Amino acid sequence: MKTVAIIGLGLLGGSVGLAIKERAGTIVTTGYDRDAEVRDRATERGLVGTVCETAAQAVDGADLVILCVPVGAMEAAAGELAPQLKPGAIISDVGSSKESVAQALARALPGHTIIPAHPVAGTEQSGPEAGFASLFVNRWCILTPPEGVEKEAVKALSDFWASLGARVEIMDASHHDLVLAVTSHIPHLIAYTIVGTASDLEEVTRSEVIKYSAGGFRDFTRIAASDPVMWRDVFLNNKGAVLEVLGRFTEDLTALQRAIRSGDGDTLHDLFTRTRAIRREVIDQGQDDERPDFGRKDHS
Amino acid sequence: MKTVAIIGLGLLGGSVGLAIKERAGTIVTTGYDRDAEVRDRATERGLVGTVCETAAQAVDGADLVILCVPVGAMEAAAGELAPQLKPGAIISDVGSSKESVAQALARALPGHTIIPAHPVAGTEQSGPEAGFASLFVNRWCILTPPEGVEKEAVKALSDFWASLGARVEIMDASHHDLVLAVTSHIPHLIAYTIVGTASDLEEVTRSEVIKYSAGGFRDFTRIAASDPVMWRDVFLNNKGAVLEVLGRFTEDLTALQRAIRSGDGDTLHDLFTRTRAIRREVIDQGQDDERPDFGRKDHS
Repeated sequence: MKTVAIIGLGLLGGSVGLAIKERAGTIVTTGYDRDAEVRDRATERGLVGTVCETAAQAVDGADLVILCVPVGAMEAAAGELAPQLKPGAIISDVGSSKESVAQALARALPGHTIIPAHPVAGTEQSGPEAGFASLFVNRWCILTPPEGVEKEAVKALSDFWASLGARVEIMDASHHDLVLAVTSHIPHLIAYTIVGTASDLEEVTRSEVIKYSAGGFRDFTRIAASDPVMWRDVFLNNKGAVLEVLGRFTEDLTALQRAIRSGDGDTLHDLFTRTRAIRREVIDQGQDDERPDFGRKDHS
Repeated sequence: MKTVAIIGLGLLGGSVGLAIKERAGTIVTTGYDRDAEVRDRATERGLVGTVCETAAQAVDGADLVILCVPVGAMEAAAGELAPQLKPGAIISDVGSSKESVAQALARALPGHTIIPAHPVAGTEQSGPEAGFASLFVNRWCILTPPEGVEKEAVKALSDFWASLGARVEIMDASHHDLVLAVTSHIPHLIAYTIVGTASDLEEVTRSEVIKYSAGGFRDFTRIAASDPVMWRDVFLNNKGAVLEVLGRFTEDLTALQRAIRSGDGDTLHDLFTRTRAIRREVIDQGQDDERPDFGRKDHS
């Protein structure tokens, strides 16, 4: 892996570029974003070695091309660069849904080596200012290689992500989509919903919602500040798994609603005790900050 | 306000004691917890000046008594200390629901000066180790004085909370309960639910849920690690407002479910854009950490 082209220079693309610079400095990077302002800012921040004026220029000669665009934009972005791809180049991405991306890339780039990937990492911020080199450290990156792709290519992409500090897992695209519906997509959908609900109530003012948000609500506002286009595309492109998990969530919420209505404290207490143990495991496995309140500076 | 008695020495009670020591050091503090181990630990940490062996001892001569116990335990706790209360003492609390607490305290302590209060602050941790002096700084503390309570007493309690760094607001108990249902109780209920749902799915293992939790789920595990007894009591004691707001949330979630099913990206995008603005306001008003990801040390 000598040269890597990054298409889309927002939070993820920018972080990939910065992580390469910091941790795998021998790799030459090029990049492209369809927004000229983003390209200018990417140049200023040095997100990649060379910011190109077209996607085709960026991928010219690249061993690995990583599409860092919303999942709904993958097919069009891949189509733009098709004519210039080096034979044998690996095409990958960082999208949050994988079955739809695999299909989109297969349509746009028939005959190419396509290995969809998803680094499970991010923040609520977006754009060329948001990226940073350590985003992937100790985070999992899931590869979903289609049947028949060369093992050497999968190994090369795994090694690449490991070199950025990530831990790599391989699974099939449909299982990925179900797992991520649980650990990412439904949490985002719920956060967006409750923030919307809170700001639409007639009986409670928006100012009150903001003032008293430290009671728990503010955590949801962080997630609900995530990039609107990216998330719209995730829900439209992982519809099946999202609706399935949402159905389960709704059933469980209805059961709790009934417990509250009937004054069934034991049911509530049992659940609240079980969920506490999960937090412990998340921390023990290095997947969250162990400090209270995520280490917010409230408490400094 | 020369002497303050704190009944219950967990996260909130301990933080009140430490905040007094740090910011209002002329006030003499006593404390009591019904758990002997908590009393020992409170003594070691110096959460209050004197840890007493009974609630009655702790409140003997106190100008202000603050009940820092789960809202379901308020009436019993207040009953224990009734015989020893100094005439004119103010009785307050830190509970998350206020109508039920006002009624419980009125039953247990007829004729006393009762001013329920709720500092909107906390972390997911609990117990005598969890408290810290700056918990209330720049957080709102809501007082819900019943009709007829003396203005001087309300002023004294307001000044007390301000001296600990809090901003004070006065509202009636039923409005408090609705506002907090939105900004705290429903967020907790939803977090508990999704963490439970995720850990009960057959198709996705618990290990997968933990591994890929950085996609959003881990935020919910923090809230769902909150004290089980405290939160059971909140839901049982603020049933009306919780069920009302939950109904609104469920309606909104159903509408989003329909938008996803029908591929209505505009509805999704519109909501996700609106919710982003709320985050900005939460930060602008000093109610959350502006750093990405709450400043988690992932990114150090």
